[in-house]
Amino acid sequence: MSEARSVLQPGATIGILGGGQLGRMLALAAARLGFKCHVFSPNPDSPAVDVVHRVTCADYTDTQALDRFAGEVDLVTYEFENVPAECATFLAARVPVLPDPEILATTQDRLAEKNFIGALGIGVAPFVAVEEPAGLKAAIEQIGRPAVLKTRRFGYDGKGQATIKDGGDPQAAWREVGAQPCILEAFVPFAREVSVVAARANDGSVECFDVTENEHRDHILKVSRVPAALPEAGAQEARRIAETIAQKFAYVGVLAVEMFVLRDGGILVNEIAPRVHNSGHWTIDGASVSQFEQHIRAVAGWPLGKPIRHGRVEMTNLIGSEIEDYRRWLAIPGAAVHLYGKKAVRPGRKMGHVTRVFAD
Amino acid sequence: MSEARSVLQPGATIGILGGGQLGRMLALAAARLGFKCHVFSPNPDSPAVDVVHRVTCADYTDTQALDRFAGEVDLVTYEFENVPAECATFLAARVPVLPDPEILATTQDRLAEKNFIGALGIGVAPFVAVEEPAGLKAAIEQIGRPAVLKTRRFGYDGKGQATIKDGGDPQAAWREVGAQPCILEAFVPFAREVSVVAARANDGSVECFDVTENEHRDHILKVSRVPAALPEAGAQEARRIAETIAQKFAYVGVLAVEMFVLRDGGILVNEIAPRVHNSGHWTIDGASVSQFEQHIRAVAGWPLGKPIRHGRVEMTNLIGSEIEDYRRWLAIPGAAVHLYGKKAVRPGRKMGHVTRVFAD
Repeated sequence: MSEARSVLQPGATIGILGGGQLGRMLALAAARLGFKCHVFSPNPDSPAVDVVHRVTCADYTDTQALDRFAGEVDLVTYEFENVPAECATFLAARVPVLPDPEILATTQDRLAEKNFIGALGIGVAPFVAVEEPAGLKAAIEQIGRPAVLKTRRFGYDGKGQATIKDGGDPQAAWREVGAQPCILEAFVPFAREVSVVAARANDGSVECFDVTENEHRDHILKVSRVPAALPEAGAQEARRIAETIAQKFAYVGVLAVEMFVLRDGGILVNEIAPRVHNSGHWTIDGASVSQFEQHIRAVAGWPLGKPIRHGRVEMTNLIGSEIEDYRRWLAIPGAAVHLYGKKAVRPGRKMGHVTRVFAD
Repeated sequence: MSEARSVLQPGATIGILGGGQLGRMLALAAARLGFKCHVFSPNPDSPAVDVVHRVTCADYTDTQALDRFAGEVDLVTYEFENVPAECATFLAARVPVLPDPEILATTQDRLAEKNFIGALGIGVAPFVAVEEPAGLKAAIEQIGRPAVLKTRRFGYDGKGQATIKDGGDPQAAWREVGAQPCILEAFVPFAREVSVVAARANDGSVECFDVTENEHRDHILKVSRVPAALPEAGAQEARRIAETIAQKFAYVGVLAVEMFVLRDGGILVNEIAPRVHNSGHWTIDGASVSQFEQHIRAVAGWPLGKPIRHGRVEMTNLIGSEIEDYRRWLAIPGAAVHLYGKKAVRPGRKMGHVTRVFAD
């Protein structure tokens, strides 16, 4: 881990695995700080490719391309946690990769992630691993219904999830998620969903953004509001959880921890995203330093910024055809409109977002 | 001018003439709004080339390159007002160019600019045109001393200027500015220097940012403070002057008007910059919409944003070796550090800036 302690100079080149909107916003933040970016993405139409010094368009398994990429950058980070572990490991043998690829092994597998969180004494929803259809019946007996069957790997925005209700057919749920290793999770009757975006620098310092309250629609984040409507003790606990996870990973960069707040005020962790996160987009316009800049500062070995919130903030995702509302949003005083430059409009696709800051 | 009324769609490509830090920050603002940028710059090491979709590296007189460039963009704007008029005119025959290249003809020539401003009934420092050395003596008799000899064309950051004091040698000043057509301007004993950055959309609407007070060092902007220490009537008058100029030009985009505030509160215009301006950099972190986004909105035919200031703002340029202070600035809570990615550090070169926002 000695190279993780290295410090980039302005003008250095940061490699970014993944070319989505998170990579685009990371690259814009890196540019503010005087860095060049080189995006590695399998897709030439990725949102990030339009705002960077250089692009490698290749598959994550193309070791020749990865080798050249490693030779042209001073550091690699990612905007996308489902990068194949072999890809990150291959790169890490050639150039510093931050956050540490070993963390991906944990966060890419819901079972490993939940075991990791539980071992820290942090609450998670009751769950049982389900390796094969035969195990599902026993799992349901243990967890009860309703329960949620979730694939261990590659889930996002509600993909790879199926709810099993009273009277529902468990085997249909098993087929729906693709008949693969899963966990069965108790359905948690939460009062609200919140998240904490935290940055950890390589000197061990941590800065958490204020707790964000998240409203989903069809399993996709629709609105984030800051601060979350939590008593101060609950907000402190949420930040403590995120900081504990960041420290245990010896994380360098930004991560997000999604949590459920129960009716009695208790907090359970839902999942960890080892990257910048949609629920932190409000920080671009609503705070003195953004999650994207914090991530770049952290991986560059630079000091973290002190996040000072400008007021009460609301971030609204523009999903699918909602992008067509952009002119209406442009006319709203104080609304900061962000469009990701995606060509194809598809239902459920995140096309942009709007942030509004109000006096506290 | 019918094409000036056209409206870009997200995903369109904006051509930018000039590749300096102003182009870099314009491109970053355009990216937020979902546009691609194509920079045309004679210098492959320009700060803007690292953050754009495409770069043409060619001279402004290379009509083949200009023709290709025009074919690949939906609109052209500039970050640099000393683009040869022939270049802008050549492009304007092929693609919309905003602001109107005819405005450059006025602002590139101090004499034409001062006559334009004076004709609007707006005060300027007393001046006389000096075409040749022989005219200098009569000019000094008319204007008095001290006076400032300024080249009519291509001056910036104090370049092309020489002060003629009592007992000084006028002919030495003439040689110092390169023995070319000049104006001789009375030295104005001003109380403060201020500027107004204004945006005008193609529907004629204008939004001015708050009046900024500017402190120069060696003729280079060092610190901008907002709001300027002016009585409200003075601030209103300064904004009115900027709006009058923008309307008279039928300007589309952002311009800056530099002004002197006299001890009696009177305001004289020093010069017009037909572009985004260093004294507007504070708007990136200090306002709900930046000067760069306003410019992009205006040229794209989009509605202007309503600039809401987040507090009292101070912007400090990092000039020459001051760039080396960046780590000290990074550690200051709330300081937003911007580095332009310039390789060579030279005395007087603008390498970056820092913005701090304080509660009003």
